[in-house]
Amino acid sequence: MKPEIVQGTRDFSPQVVNKRNYIFNTLRNIFEKYGYQAIETPTMERLSTLTGKYGDEGDQLLFKVLNNGDYLKKANKEALENLDSKKLMPSIAKRGLRYDLTVPFARYVVMNRNDIAFPFKRYQIQPVWRADRPQRGRYREFYQCDVDVIGSKSLLYEAELIQIYDEAFAQLGLEVVIRVNNRKILEGLAAYAGYPDSFVQIVTAIDKLDKIGWDGVKTELEKFDVDENGFQKIRKVIDAKDLMELSSLFEGIEVGQQGVQELNEVQAFLDASNYTVKNKLAIDFSLARGLSYYTGGIFEVVVDISVAGQEAVKMGSIGGGGRYADLTGMFGLKDMSGVGVSFGADRIYDVLDELNLFKDIPTDTTQVLVLTMDEESLKYGFGLTQQIRAAGINADIYPEVGKFKKLMKYANRRGIPYVIIIGEQERTSQELSFKEMETGAQSKLTIENIIAQLSN
Amino acid sequence: MKPEIVQGTRDFSPQVVNKRNYIFNTLRNIFEKYGYQAIETPTMERLSTLTGKYGDEGDQLLFKVLNNGDYLKKANKEALENLDSKKLMPSIAKRGLRYDLTVPFARYVVMNRNDIAFPFKRYQIQPVWRADRPQRGRYREFYQCDVDVIGSKSLLYEAELIQIYDEAFAQLGLEVVIRVNNRKILEGLAAYAGYPDSFVQIVTAIDKLDKIGWDGVKTELEKFDVDENGFQKIRKVIDAKDLMELSSLFEGIEVGQQGVQELNEVQAFLDASNYTVKNKLAIDFSLARGLSYYTGGIFEVVVDISVAGQEAVKMGSIGGGGRYADLTGMFGLKDMSGVGVSFGADRIYDVLDELNLFKDIPTDTTQVLVLTMDEESLKYGFGLTQQIRAAGINADIYPEVGKFKKLMKYANRRGIPYVIIIGEQERTSQELSFKEMETGAQSKLTIENIIAQLSN
Repeated sequence: MKPEIVQGTRDFSPQVVNKRNYIFNTLRNIFEKYGYQAIETPTMERLSTLTGKYGDEGDQLLFKVLNNGDYLKKANKEALENLDSKKLMPSIAKRGLRYDLTVPFARYVVMNRNDIAFPFKRYQIQPVWRADRPQRGRYREFYQCDVDVIGSKSLLYEAELIQIYDEAFAQLGLEVVIRVNNRKILEGLAAYAGYPDSFVQIVTAIDKLDKIGWDGVKTELEKFDVDENGFQKIRKVIDAKDLMELSSLFEGIEVGQQGVQELNEVQAFLDASNYTVKNKLAIDFSLARGLSYYTGGIFEVVVDISVAGQEAVKMGSIGGGGRYADLTGMFGLKDMSGVGVSFGADRIYDVLDELNLFKDIPTDTTQVLVLTMDEESLKYGFGLTQQIRAAGINADIYPEVGKFKKLMKYANRRGIPYVIIIGEQERTSQELSFKEMETGAQSKLTIENIIAQLSN
Repeated sequence: MKPEIVQGTRDFSPQVVNKRNYIFNTLRNIFEKYGYQAIETPTMERLSTLTGKYGDEGDQLLFKVLNNGDYLKKANKEALENLDSKKLMPSIAKRGLRYDLTVPFARYVVMNRNDIAFPFKRYQIQPVWRADRPQRGRYREFYQCDVDVIGSKSLLYEAELIQIYDEAFAQLGLEVVIRVNNRKILEGLAAYAGYPDSFVQIVTAIDKLDKIGWDGVKTELEKFDVDENGFQKIRKVIDAKDLMELSSLFEGIEVGQQGVQELNEVQAFLDASNYTVKNKLAIDFSLARGLSYYTGGIFEVVVDISVAGQEAVKMGSIGGGGRYADLTGMFGLKDMSGVGVSFGADRIYDVLDELNLFKDIPTDTTQVLVLTMDEESLKYGFGLTQQIRAAGINADIYPEVGKFKKLMKYANRRGIPYVIIIGEQERTSQELSFKEMETGAQSKLTIENIIAQLSN
């Protein structure tokens, strides 16, 4: 039998695991520096928890787990007879795979609300599953890295999350643009243009500005009868150069003024923090993130094309988030405002790889490999290997004596940077051959000297 | 709607995540010190990969994932009409959840054999799923930590894996007994007793010795006609005090001699390594581990009852493993000998918790919390919080000004060890109130002094 992997999923080799852990550990350390704590939720959730939270398309993309045992016993007989897959499903599958980290987080908060001190700052780095059609860069199993705070309306957190984005991408060496907006500004825009009831359509059109340009947006807007005057007003808002200009445009439009005020408050926290933003921070009045569920601040991170080149546009956003006024309402806990951002780990991985920013991540975490030429040296070398390990250095030994060429080939394939070669001569003199694989430089050293050198 | 969690699964709170990561990181560092590299495989495997690998019971305990879309379209119509759940299953579910880490590892090796340098030393720390009846200490989602080497018959690895067990439990502060045996010794025992064809039954009976004692074993053996002479010979082997005595009993029994020789060779590697075993290492000729699939060395770790008390017996084994002559044969790649051991992370967690060995793991990784008494101090405090973070210290700030008592309660509930309190006076004097929560000790310090103190 020829083994196969499930379509849309991936095995991760040691080198890829190392690169991925470098991303995860960078994020983890920053999240904890900012006071966020890790939680983990189970892979399987009850379908009653998941269904209806992600729209019709989401419901279809959920992976459902077949009930165990004689699952047909309690199956919906009518649906069975009619071969109605959709109708049958709830009677034969009560569990599904985690689709995102937000719904499980909301469930966690509701179920553990008596043990949680609010505001609750949590991060979560776990895989999610979606039955999407697999394609380049889109997988059926992928990691999400979410950092959220729930139980406070303070705009201090919006400032903090911007800093977390900034610090994370600075540490990863990736230059980005952090785009910021506020749902209330988008609502103000629709009101200012004179079409408050067409809010969703207007924002959906504006959301495509990057891709279709102003001409395209105009065509879209005409579809639901936005006139030239309305179009010009929309354009004026989007093109406003700062919050002050926007504020004067929004005279008398309360929701719009609220949006301006909130962004001003976020800016005031940033100013008070003595923190210098290392990436580009851009207030972008067109940013909507497909409207999602955000009720206040909206965030998005894209690779800075002025640095990475026009190609970076294709990469899309590598992070996004915002504020939800009522994150746990779906589970009956009202008035819990939350704000959070997500890091698209798989996309970040692809971008770092493409821009060659993983250069210091080792293929193999082993520092040195011991190679031996005869049976007595093998046991002797095993003792030396343990001595190196006892000094806290990752070390390995080839388990058989063998031809020099074969052993060197093994060291090479694993990508181990140093080898120690021991034959009878080295064993009796206790001067070991120590070779740096990259340069080929070789020297005779005692084990103590080798350990000292590797410890640096 | 009242949210529920899937039965047999668990949410992990921050404190539990910290404790679990302490175990995982301890293991990870030791595995890498010994030259093992991490791989990760997908949560879902094809059912054709999983089915038939774990026996009939295992097949039933596999979680199966329902095919997406109109899954009834290709369903087995006959099975549908007969309401035959078992027969229908393969036609509506082609994927299942990972049941252990060994089968996915074998699949990985076969699929990636051209890119792997053998011997391939890999470790894997990932969850697995089993539809077992949930009970105390048994979950439907739990982690396995496996460390294996494949592609070599060298007994050096048996010695190395014993050292890994020893070092891991020593670092975790848990005193254990590492039990070692060899399948060939068990085969020799059946031959020596005169019942080579009853090998499986004899070993199954002996495997229960711990629980049922010699009288019980005798009753079991009588069931398949082992006579008194046979019983006494079996007892002689199990009670043999060392390998030399065993070797003389096994005179003329080739397979038994091979077993003795292999254990002697493992011992020779241990002796050559200058490594002092910190736990009890016990060669135990009754150890069979339910016979599993092992063909050579067999390992098991139990908590040392002479230290942890009789209660520890109930905990069962917290690790086990052995050598497989043909790990990848199930996927058509022949003659790949492998040896490995597993750490039962959930049981180890429970034992450490019960013996109070987690004492240094923090409830919350935040070192210091800033509390402020007025709006101006809030912004000022936000700046100071950033200053503390910039020094690499995990710091947080309460996002609102508030009553002192409420803020202190928050700090207390989160378990953050230090707080900084800032009101108008502190802000103007720049001498901040710095309080150690456990002792209640309070002092007035500049931010620089606080950072210096927290950095120690």
